[in-house]
Amino acid sequence: MPSNRRRLILSTFVLVLAPLAFASAQAPAFSPWVAGLRDDAARLIRAATADDFAWQRLAMLTDTFGARISGSENLSQAIDWAVETMKADGFENVRKEPVMVPRWIRGRESAEILDPPRHQVAMLGLGGTVATPPGGLDADVLPVSSFDDLRGRGSEAKGRIVLFNVPYSSYAETVTYRTGGARLAAQYGAVAVLVRSVGPIGLRTAHTGSVQYQQGQKAIPAASISVEDANRIVRLTARGRRVRMHLVTEGRYEPDVESANVVAEIRGREKPDEIILLGGHLDSWDVGTGASDDGVGCIVTWEAARLMLKLGIRPRRTIRVVLWTNEENGLRGANAYAERYASQAEDHVFALESDSGVFAPAALGFSGSGMARAMMSHLGSLLAPLGFTEIVPGGGGADIGPIAQAGNVPTMAYLGDAARYFVIHHTAADTVERIAPDEVSKAAAAIAVMTYAVAEMPERLPR
Amino acid sequence: MPSNRRRLILSTFVLVLAPLAFASAQAPAFSPWVAGLRDDAARLIRAATADDFAWQRLAMLTDTFGARISGSENLSQAIDWAVETMKADGFENVRKEPVMVPRWIRGRESAEILDPPRHQVAMLGLGGTVATPPGGLDADVLPVSSFDDLRGRGSEAKGRIVLFNVPYSSYAETVTYRTGGARLAAQYGAVAVLVRSVGPIGLRTAHTGSVQYQQGQKAIPAASISVEDANRIVRLTARGRRVRMHLVTEGRYEPDVESANVVAEIRGREKPDEIILLGGHLDSWDVGTGASDDGVGCIVTWEAARLMLKLGIRPRRTIRVVLWTNEENGLRGANAYAERYASQAEDHVFALESDSGVFAPAALGFSGSGMARAMMSHLGSLLAPLGFTEIVPGGGGADIGPIAQAGNVPTMAYLGDAARYFVIHHTAADTVERIAPDEVSKAAAAIAVMTYAVAEMPERLPR
Repeated sequence: MPSNRRRLILSTFVLVLAPLAFASAQAPAFSPWVAGLRDDAARLIRAATADDFAWQRLAMLTDTFGARISGSENLSQAIDWAVETMKADGFENVRKEPVMVPRWIRGRESAEILDPPRHQVAMLGLGGTVATPPGGLDADVLPVSSFDDLRGRGSEAKGRIVLFNVPYSSYAETVTYRTGGARLAAQYGAVAVLVRSVGPIGLRTAHTGSVQYQQGQKAIPAASISVEDANRIVRLTARGRRVRMHLVTEGRYEPDVESANVVAEIRGREKPDEIILLGGHLDSWDVGTGASDDGVGCIVTWEAARLMLKLGIRPRRTIRVVLWTNEENGLRGANAYAERYASQAEDHVFALESDSGVFAPAALGFSGSGMARAMMSHLGSLLAPLGFTEIVPGGGGADIGPIAQAGNVPTMAYLGDAARYFVIHHTAADTVERIAPDEVSKAAAAIAVMTYAVAEMPERLPR
Repeated sequence: MPSNRRRLILSTFVLVLAPLAFASAQAPAFSPWVAGLRDDAARLIRAATADDFAWQRLAMLTDTFGARISGSENLSQAIDWAVETMKADGFENVRKEPVMVPRWIRGRESAEILDPPRHQVAMLGLGGTVATPPGGLDADVLPVSSFDDLRGRGSEAKGRIVLFNVPYSSYAETVTYRTGGARLAAQYGAVAVLVRSVGPIGLRTAHTGSVQYQQGQKAIPAASISVEDANRIVRLTARGRRVRMHLVTEGRYEPDVESANVVAEIRGREKPDEIILLGGHLDSWDVGTGASDDGVGCIVTWEAARLMLKLGIRPRRTIRVVLWTNEENGLRGANAYAERYASQAEDHVFALESDSGVFAPAALGFSGSGMARAMMSHLGSLLAPLGFTEIVPGGGGADIGPIAQAGNVPTMAYLGDAARYFVIHHTAADTVERIAPDEVSKAAAAIAVMTYAVAEMPERLPR
């Protein structure tokens, strides 16, 4: 999940910490119909939670293909594997929808304190960073505590490496330094920017993620460093020591390459042109194995639909699973999807995205009209066996965003616990080991029930 | 702390999980005298816990000098700083006692899975590893689950990289694969050995530590890999995939260089030739900043003595603080100390080492005669304000070991919580951030009280 969309979602989420419940009394009209879904919902939940099939598939994806950054061979192979496997599952209309995506290459990189005694700094170049001059650059580090702090000390920044040492509060608040720090630092003549990793303290863990440059301004190298390294530099400078650093980045863009969204369907038995869209993004950053961000989002939405196939359930409307490409550094997949289906945007009845991990305690967020909310909340009663008692505000997601906007589509997000998610977010530690099989099964079950129920409603979910 | 001594200590510790209490009734004879120490003990505890002086000094050490592997410039500078600072503190007889130490250089290193799609493996060469051929080596990986498993599959190991994938149970049990894995793998013709990191799962965290080769046998490159990478390789091979790896290590020894133990004293007011020895080791591995292993052990023992100086306490016997060199990969400092003071070994009345971190819940371990134990337990009552209610079995330590053995010296260890310690042990994450100021203060207080009390006893602690 990239920064901007995440910010919106989390802000909404945080603002309404106490989940809003929508009393079922508000929507009594369709109760008998919901009751009729109860058996199928129970079957889906039982099938999802009977084994660790979904976790094993996630392990297969992340073990075999590893990190899947846009434009990489790994992503390309993962896409082909998903297509083949979806066909073998029995999905209909399994296809790749081509998209040109950027290809950013990290290259070698390092950061070293030269004085006091040399030591390596735990770092990761930010996604999209430009390269240092060949051989790297040497400069003194200027730690600042905020954008305003830098503005107040602008004259000290010239020729230096600015370090934004901002303790993690929430992703929404802190990520602004990762995305925007390079622009402000460049404005004051800094030669590079370092950002204290956007996440809680780990084990000397650096978090990557995209940096945004400003057109017409010289782009400077940008990297994240671990919380421990940031603290150390700050303590050293506070004691009056000059901290001199050698920084090497080799980040570069190569020409765009062809990638694809993967699409698979269960065609609706009565209203095949009305689409229930669900998915996650198959690309990841180039460190870790993209298990939580967002291999698991792909797997649980795919699995939700596979469970319907497995149980012989063909809903009234079409279930469409999309595994998007290039969410992390371009959103080309999501935009291409919205363009391709622009004329059918309003046929998208409902869209669900999973791109916040599946860590417990998880929640289901929804964005839509009041009436739609009331109906979703009522449907949510089908999830009681899974422990979901309420639908919280905040649906949507980066990949369903463009089509949802075009078609004014009601949206839902599967929201994993942020405290656990952001420990590994955009790090080398985003691996399948962090994810419990029962959390994956539970997410697949919840998504299966909600998408099936909306696909099966007699009338389409109101806008 | 290296493996062998740690094994002994932990075995003892684990075997007697329920700490043995020594009822104060066993040693009523010196109760009035202990009561006379109560005021000074309370003053020491108050002074230690009044501020975060010791933690700040630890931060100064680890921030300024970083990793301090034997033979490095960083260690050399840290030694000089300690000498100067101890002099400034007001210690007597502050000196460097020269010791020649090994100088092992890690060099560049990497491990990469070549097929399936290339990806970097999180690794650290083991301390003392030999180099791969220039440019590295390529070989298939053979995962095994134990020494016996390898013995049973010996014919498959030839020409391969053997991976010991042994889940962490306790350090004592699991470290045998790190120290001894290379020998057995070489015996079966393996070209290199990988060891699943000896520690609980971290955040893609590799743990280094020494490897032991066998004389007369070809030494093969040896490295640790993260738990996640080990699991991934095991899952891939379990699915029938061949895992081919490119491994690069450049480990090499350069000629021994001069290092030193740092010694500082408070001369005893009545029995200056009777020594109360306490300390930790100033060297560390070359990753992280050696904060828990064992910067903090140096700082808390040094601080214990500094508090006596600060409060104007000059005990009956001499307090001698030693910051040993080369504990991690040679124990040359400890052996040199024992040689230098061989004729005065029996003048060492008591020796205390801190080399297990200071993580709460901590304990004080003791090894000595039954009578000495009873007395120490009685003295332990002075620590009630700190929450230590018992003295547990298991004193000793790697650095006090040689002199204690030579002089049959009663020993004590400050034992930090192992569960927290081994998360960061020998990793890049061994930094001051993991250590709470109050835990450092508490350790210094407890060590100050115990060493002061033994130094002040009318009769020397019995052997």
